[in-house]
Amino acid sequence: MTSKKLLFTPGPLTTSATVKEAMLEDMGSRDYAFINSVKEIRTELLELAHVSKAEGYECVIVQGSGTFGIESVISSAVGKKDVLGVLVNGAYGERIAKMANIHVLNHHVLRFPEDEVVTPESTKAFLKSYPDITHVACIHSETTTGLFNPIEEIGTVCKQHPAVFIVDAMSSFGGMEMDLKKSNIDFLVSSSNKCIEGIPGFAFALCRKSELEKAKGQARSLSLDLYDQWAGLEASGQFRFTPPTLSIMAFRQAMKELEKEGGIKAREKRYKENKRALDAGMSRLGFKQYLRPEIQGHIITSFLYPKDPLFNFERFYRKLSDRGFVIYPGKLSKVDAFRIGNIGQIFPEDVRSLIAAIKEVLEEDRIRVEN
Amino acid sequence: MTSKKLLFTPGPLTTSATVKEAMLEDMGSRDYAFINSVKEIRTELLELAHVSKAEGYECVIVQGSGTFGIESVISSAVGKKDVLGVLVNGAYGERIAKMANIHVLNHHVLRFPEDEVVTPESTKAFLKSYPDITHVACIHSETTTGLFNPIEEIGTVCKQHPAVFIVDAMSSFGGMEMDLKKSNIDFLVSSSNKCIEGIPGFAFALCRKSELEKAKGQARSLSLDLYDQWAGLEASGQFRFTPPTLSIMAFRQAMKELEKEGGIKAREKRYKENKRALDAGMSRLGFKQYLRPEIQGHIITSFLYPKDPLFNFERFYRKLSDRGFVIYPGKLSKVDAFRIGNIGQIFPEDVRSLIAAIKEVLEEDRIRVEN
Repeated sequence: MTSKKLLFTPGPLTTSATVKEAMLEDMGSRDYAFINSVKEIRTELLELAHVSKAEGYECVIVQGSGTFGIESVISSAVGKKDVLGVLVNGAYGERIAKMANIHVLNHHVLRFPEDEVVTPESTKAFLKSYPDITHVACIHSETTTGLFNPIEEIGTVCKQHPAVFIVDAMSSFGGMEMDLKKSNIDFLVSSSNKCIEGIPGFAFALCRKSELEKAKGQARSLSLDLYDQWAGLEASGQFRFTPPTLSIMAFRQAMKELEKEGGIKAREKRYKENKRALDAGMSRLGFKQYLRPEIQGHIITSFLYPKDPLFNFERFYRKLSDRGFVIYPGKLSKVDAFRIGNIGQIFPEDVRSLIAAIKEVLEEDRIRVEN
Repeated sequence: MTSKKLLFTPGPLTTSATVKEAMLEDMGSRDYAFINSVKEIRTELLELAHVSKAEGYECVIVQGSGTFGIESVISSAVGKKDVLGVLVNGAYGERIAKMANIHVLNHHVLRFPEDEVVTPESTKAFLKSYPDITHVACIHSETTTGLFNPIEEIGTVCKQHPAVFIVDAMSSFGGMEMDLKKSNIDFLVSSSNKCIEGIPGFAFALCRKSELEKAKGQARSLSLDLYDQWAGLEASGQFRFTPPTLSIMAFRQAMKELEKEGGIKAREKRYKENKRALDAGMSRLGFKQYLRPEIQGHIITSFLYPKDPLFNFERFYRKLSDRGFVIYPGKLSKVDAFRIGNIGQIFPEDVRSLIAAIKEVLEEDRIRVEN
C-alpha cells in the first residue's frame, strides 16, 4: 500500500478526509437525498458566482472531466450561423480551438505567446477585424503556465462588440472571487476536482439562461447536449444519464467545508499564503519561475528545470512522490519546466514541508540550482 | 442523515464497504499507483471477456456514464461511408438510433416490440434488405424490460454478412459469462457501476484492435474520440483528460472482489439466486411480470403495477426507501410497471427482506395485488 500523499497539482487535488468519507454510502441516482444534493449544489454554485436563477442564470452539471464541460458548452452554444473567436495563450486555449475544428464551427483564433496575457486591446482589435464573431472563448487561469487572463476587461470588450462570453475558469473558480455579471460572462465552466476541493467526476457550467435557451437543438452530440442536460435536470431534478453519484455527494460536502472555511475570500487568502510560501522557498533554493510576477496567478506556478545536466525530472518526481509529495510535469511548448499547485487541502506548513523535501532530493542527487 | 440503503436498481448499485473505502486516499492522475491500476483494469477486463491484447483486443476507458461510452464507440467506429444497422427493442436501442440521427450517420433501424427479443432470423432478413450495412448495434440486456437478446446468434449473422458488431452490454457484462470471440463482438461497452460492482464515473469499451484502428480521425467530438483516448492510454498509460481517479481505484478493488467471489461464474450464480428469490416472493404477493419467462434475464425484472387504484408508485417507492430498499421506476412505453434489479452486493436474504418490506407496505396501504 502507498502511504498518503499530498498533491501539489492542478487537480485532482488533496481533499479533506470528510469529503472522501461522504462517498462511503451507496446512493441511488433517483433517491430524494441525492436529488436534493444536486439541487443544493446547482443553487449554491450560482451563489458563489454572485448570481441566481431569479437573475436569469442556470447551473448545468455535466458528467466527465472539465474538458467534457467545455466541449458541452462550445458544441452546444455556438450555432451553425454563429462565429466563435478563440483567445489562446496556452494548451487549454488551443484545446478549445481544436474543438472548434472538430465540430466545424465557424471560428477565428487569436494567439498570444505562452508567457503573455490575452490583452483587452488585442481582443478589441481582433473583434474589429472579425465583426462576424458572435461568441468569444477565453481561459481564465491558464494551467499551462499559471497566468491569469484579465477576464473582467475582456468581458467588457465582449459586451461592447457584442459577443457571448465563454470562460474556462477550470482551475480558478472557487479559488478567487468571480462575479458573472460584473465580468459579463455568459458561460463559465469549472470542474468538481478543482478549487471547490471535491473529487473528479463532473464539470459544471454556469450559464446565462437566455443564451442557454438558444442552445436548444444545436448540440453536436447526445451526451454533451448542454440544453438537454439542463432541461432534464429542471424537469425532474434527475440526470438524463447515470450521474457520478458519489462524486456529487463528496462535492456537496466540499461546498459545506468551503463555506465553513469562510467562503471563497478565505480560500483565496489561504491559497495566496501557500503561493507566498512556495515563492519564498523555491527562490531560496535558486529556482526561477517561467512567468514574470505581474501576470502569475496564485493557483499554479511553472518552475524552469535547473540547468544542471544531473537534473532528471522523472527521478526528481519519483523521489518527491516517495516522500509523499506529488508535483506536476510541465506543459510548455518550448521550455522545460515543472509545475507546483497551491490549491486543495494544503496549507503553508505543507508547502514548507514540500520545499524541505525538494531541498533534500537536490542535495541527495548533488544537483545545483543556478541563481 | 439517511440510514444505509440497499439498491435494487440497474445501477448505481449497492457496493461493498471495501470498494467504497478504496476511495479514501487522494490519488494523482499521473501517479504510478494510479497508472498501474488503470493498466491492470484494462488487462483484466479483456480477460473477463476471454480475450487479450495478444489476440488483438483492446480496452478503452471513457470518462462519464455508460451512454458516453456507447456514444464514443458509435460516433468513432462508424465512418462517413459506413452504414449502421440499429436493432431496437427498448429505450436503450432507441438511444443508439438517436445518436445515429444526431451524428447524421448513414443508418437503418429494425424495431421489435418491447416484449420480444431481437431474433437472428429478422436480423438476417434486415441485413439482406440493406446489404450496405457495415456495422450493427444491439443491446444485450435491455434494461427497459430486463430481456436478454441472443447476442451470440446475432453475432453469427453479423459475421456472415459481414458487419462489425457493436454490443451494449451495459447491465450484463460481469454478471454472466461472455466471450467476445465466440459471439463475434467487435465492440462491447459496459460501465463501472454495473455487474463489476464499482461506483459510477466511467464506461469501458472492449474493442477488436483492427476495428479500433479504423476509427482514427473518424470521431465527431474531442471528448468522445475513442481512438485518441486509446492512443493516449497506450502512449503514456495516462488519460488525455482528468480521469475519475477514485472511481477507478474503487473499480480496481471491485475487480479483486469479483475474483475472490469466484469470478463471473460465481457472480452469475448469486444473481440467479437473487432472481429466483425475487420471482418466488413477488409471485406469492400476486405480482405479474411484464415479460414471459423464456426471454427474461436475471439482471432486472419489470413488474406490472397492481390494478388496485389505491396503488401509487411514488408513495410505494418512498415507503420502501424509508425502510432502506430502493427500487426503480419503469421505462416501458405503453405499460405501467416498476423494476427491481438483482445485481450489486445483494444476496438472496436481502431479496427476501425486500419482499417482506413490500408485503408490509401493501398491507399498510391496504393494496390488493390481483393474482
